[in-house]
Amino acid sequence: MCQSCVHTIHHHKAHFGWNRDTAPVHVAMPGDVLCFECADASGGQIDADATARTLATLDFGRINPLNGPVYVEGAQPGDALKITVNRFYPSGQGWTANIPGFGLLADQFPEPSLYLWRYDPVTLEPALFGHEGVRVPLKPFIGTIGAAPAEPGPHSVVPPRRVGGNMDLRDIAEGSVLYLPVEVEGALLSLGDTHAAQGDGEVCGTAIESAMNVEIRVELLKRTFLPAPRLTTSGPVTRHLDGAGYEVTIGLGPDLFQAARESVSRMIDLLSRLYGISPVNAYMLCSVCGDLRISEIVDVPNFIVSFYFPRIVFP
Amino acid sequence: MCQSCVHTIHHHKAHFGWNRDTAPVHVAMPGDVLCFECADASGGQIDADATARTLATLDFGRINPLNGPVYVEGAQPGDALKITVNRFYPSGQGWTANIPGFGLLADQFPEPSLYLWRYDPVTLEPALFGHEGVRVPLKPFIGTIGAAPAEPGPHSVVPPRRVGGNMDLRDIAEGSVLYLPVEVEGALLSLGDTHAAQGDGEVCGTAIESAMNVEIRVELLKRTFLPAPRLTTSGPVTRHLDGAGYEVTIGLGPDLFQAARESVSRMIDLLSRLYGISPVNAYMLCSVCGDLRISEIVDVPNFIVSFYFPRIVFP
Repeated sequence: MCQSCVHTIHHHKAHFGWNRDTAPVHVAMPGDVLCFECADASGGQIDADATARTLATLDFGRINPLNGPVYVEGAQPGDALKITVNRFYPSGQGWTANIPGFGLLADQFPEPSLYLWRYDPVTLEPALFGHEGVRVPLKPFIGTIGAAPAEPGPHSVVPPRRVGGNMDLRDIAEGSVLYLPVEVEGALLSLGDTHAAQGDGEVCGTAIESAMNVEIRVELLKRTFLPAPRLTTSGPVTRHLDGAGYEVTIGLGPDLFQAARESVSRMIDLLSRLYGISPVNAYMLCSVCGDLRISEIVDVPNFIVSFYFPRIVFP
Repeated sequence: MCQSCVHTIHHHKAHFGWNRDTAPVHVAMPGDVLCFECADASGGQIDADATARTLATLDFGRINPLNGPVYVEGAQPGDALKITVNRFYPSGQGWTANIPGFGLLADQFPEPSLYLWRYDPVTLEPALFGHEGVRVPLKPFIGTIGAAPAEPGPHSVVPPRRVGGNMDLRDIAEGSVLYLPVEVEGALLSLGDTHAAQGDGEVCGTAIESAMNVEIRVELLKRTFLPAPRLTTSGPVTRHLDGAGYEVTIGLGPDLFQAARESVSRMIDLLSRLYGISPVNAYMLCSVCGDLRISEIVDVPNFIVSFYFPRIVFP
């Protein structure tokens, strides 16, 4: 499958959470191209037979398995990994869930909900959502990618950190170059949590969670003292979504988090009213293809967070 | 100039701040097309001879003059104005400033700075910034547009409100349709603060501030009980910027405001290092064409705010 890879990190070589003492599963040389066989974020617990009831029995100890860690020869604290995302080999299956207690509007959506996606893994044609003729454009990316933190002991996989991790930054996609700070010898690179599509914010807490293989090139930059991850995209980032324009709702006030909540709530109301879809389906759709933007952050005391929903999704 | 307008609101018909008791300068019928002759946000105080020293003598009582208000016949509280942005007639001149005490990084940039732009008002070719061959793509929009708030008395023009105002929402641009809540009889619509370009966030506090005339159509929707302004764009919103991809820096943590500050600071550092421009010039460039996005807002406790800078700006 991957022609230029020197090594494949198989998905049974997975670990849970971050720990600088996790033994490496592979030693890579700077410049190596590696393939990571990634399970979905549930580690296979949500399969083709799953229903909303499955969400109640999820073992959260097995959430977000990470392939690795890979020890990068020569990497030292203060260096940076330069990771070029070469290619994705998607599985064609995925899921999006509202998991009770998780997500930006968890208080408004207490009931579990699950949608199982099927998509063409080769053409990546927009994927059908339910029976309303709603189709979501796809753009695979890596949800979780990071190096081991310097601080000893186990660390939850959920929050991202200075060394990366569960960033859910939807443009860690094909052609992008990601720079990650190194805090421990060998960097200890891991990745997983591949997504077939997601909007900025991942507002319901899940994307189109989808197993896929990922081919990356790992290089080493010495003594960069990078303060945080950064990214360069190889081209436009939203042309697969923007052809028909956007519906935009806003929230405003001194608190950006509350403004974000208001903007998403208003979009859910709008989509339900305009297109007759259920609020929880609108919420999940917002998560997989709508974008949270900060329109202004200077007109004190009221800032504006806008939610942009791509109109191309609806027929 | 404007062929289909039934009336022009001249820029000497300006008011400062919002007040439901400001006398209307015109009565419009729903469906009317109006032209607004807008001064720049300084009300002409920053002219072609201005320098950074001019910023110290600005009369803030004359900031953000608004053309209007226009009384819309039949508008009642609970209704909404539907405003179609038909066309801009830009002046070809503009300015961007770092005004001490104002902007997302006011603590880091205490010195005044001013850049005067010249651009082609017909072709809207990307505008030259300084002597580095840096060119910023243009997309005119209305920075401030709103109806009078119900609450009596004068209200500052600076913060946006439920009835709109100084939203600095960069897609209130040609072809967009804006919906504004009405809180008082006649709505009392005003607009001004036209911009030739701005990124999401308007991080230094100013855009390419530029006098221009604006043609809009005003319609009335009865009893919509709209909770806040909303917008529909007629097509893509960033294709003028995205051709060469983006540099992306991030801030992360539990506080979105602080994360936004970090993401912008890191972009200023990056642009200074990659392209050799001064930090304050990088800051102003970020304001006129870079975008603040919330990449994830669910991976508690650390959220990610990303700053996207379009690489097309640099030669």
